[in-house]
Amino acid sequence: MKKVKVFGVWASPYSGRVEIALKWKGVEYEFVEEDLQNKSEELLKYNPIYKKIPVLVHNEKAVAESLIIMEYIDETWKADPIFPKDPYERAQARFWANFIDDNLMPSARTALLSTGEESEKAITELEQLFKVVENEIKEKKFFGGNNIGFLDIVALVVAFWIPCMQEFTAKNILTKEKYQLICIWSEKLLGCSIIKQNLPDKEKLREFYQTRFAH
Amino acid sequence: MKKVKVFGVWASPYSGRVEIALKWKGVEYEFVEEDLQNKSEELLKYNPIYKKIPVLVHNEKAVAESLIIMEYIDETWKADPIFPKDPYERAQARFWANFIDDNLMPSARTALLSTGEESEKAITELEQLFKVVENEIKEKKFFGGNNIGFLDIVALVVAFWIPCMQEFTAKNILTKEKYQLICIWSEKLLGCSIIKQNLPDKEKLREFYQTRFAH
Repeated sequence: MKKVKVFGVWASPYSGRVEIALKWKGVEYEFVEEDLQNKSEELLKYNPIYKKIPVLVHNEKAVAESLIIMEYIDETWKADPIFPKDPYERAQARFWANFIDDNLMPSARTALLSTGEESEKAITELEQLFKVVENEIKEKKFFGGNNIGFLDIVALVVAFWIPCMQEFTAKNILTKEKYQLICIWSEKLLGCSIIKQNLPDKEKLREFYQTRFAH
Repeated sequence: MKKVKVFGVWASPYSGRVEIALKWKGVEYEFVEEDLQNKSEELLKYNPIYKKIPVLVHNEKAVAESLIIMEYIDETWKADPIFPKDPYERAQARFWANFIDDNLMPSARTALLSTGEESEKAITELEQLFKVVENEIKEKKFFGGNNIGFLDIVALVVAFWIPCMQEFTAKNILTKEKYQLICIWSEKLLGCSIIKQNLPDKEKLREFYQTRFAH
């Protein structure tokens, strides 16, 4: 039995992050696919507070929340760090990761998955948040600096999931014309082999979202 | 000129955390009191995204968000760590810190500062969250384990601010009868000299809140 387990959903960018971090480190793990409509007893046992994926179980100890799991992975398997070494750069990476998860993603979800006025309002908000990201990326090669790392893995939701969802919902918010630097960064990121090999199939994702969010 | 500055508000538990962490490490700093109704140009420059306190400025580089600042402080001044050493314990400390800031505090604010049905609903929610904390503290001496650390400093909002606000608003939610372990832990924490010396005066706090939240 493998001593590392990940409870997740194949289509979730949040368990996706954890898998990429483990593969980055060369850690073998067992992936346990959860059905969010019918959560397993193990998931409820390991994350009794939020009952959410992803959960990482290592030597029977459970860690929840994707950003915290990524810190745990980096601190437990120290070779090939995913976080920058410098404390200031680490703080910046954490700041932008929170910005993406707490501000950008809630806006993106509402903008893309709701309709009418609610969606319109969120689109305006999201456009402002993309401007903030565009301004942050500036002349950097990756979001986190010269090499991909923690923040780029977190920001895959912007590079991959948002463009997919835009295509599925025929809403065009994040465009090359408006956000050139985000799109150049996205292309570079999606071209990295560790990222490319660990993204779900787009057509399978389309079916998943169309079933799940069908009105 | 001191090379470390903290932009904060004397009555804020969030800048309070940062000050306690710096004092813990013996780092000299200059405290810049902000008027939240009329924020300084420096605050807007250093935290252009959220325009919020606290901000730590170290060698002209700014770090925002209290939990991220505490990680930065612990990584920059390494002696006398405030975080546990073990990666699993660090993950647990981060998990509970997020729980307090993202779940418990929003409920507590609504429960204590609003009125009528909104307050009633939040009180019911808050009582559940206190039960979760009560269950987590169990037989541990401090929230983080045998010694005070990061999580206890974060959880000062529960040990000090919530009881103060309860007293000011005459709402009695967190009581010894219902949450014995939280109250025992609170007393122990408030008795530690580094904590005791760095809490605002309760009567001054009462005036501050009465002016700010007067209906």
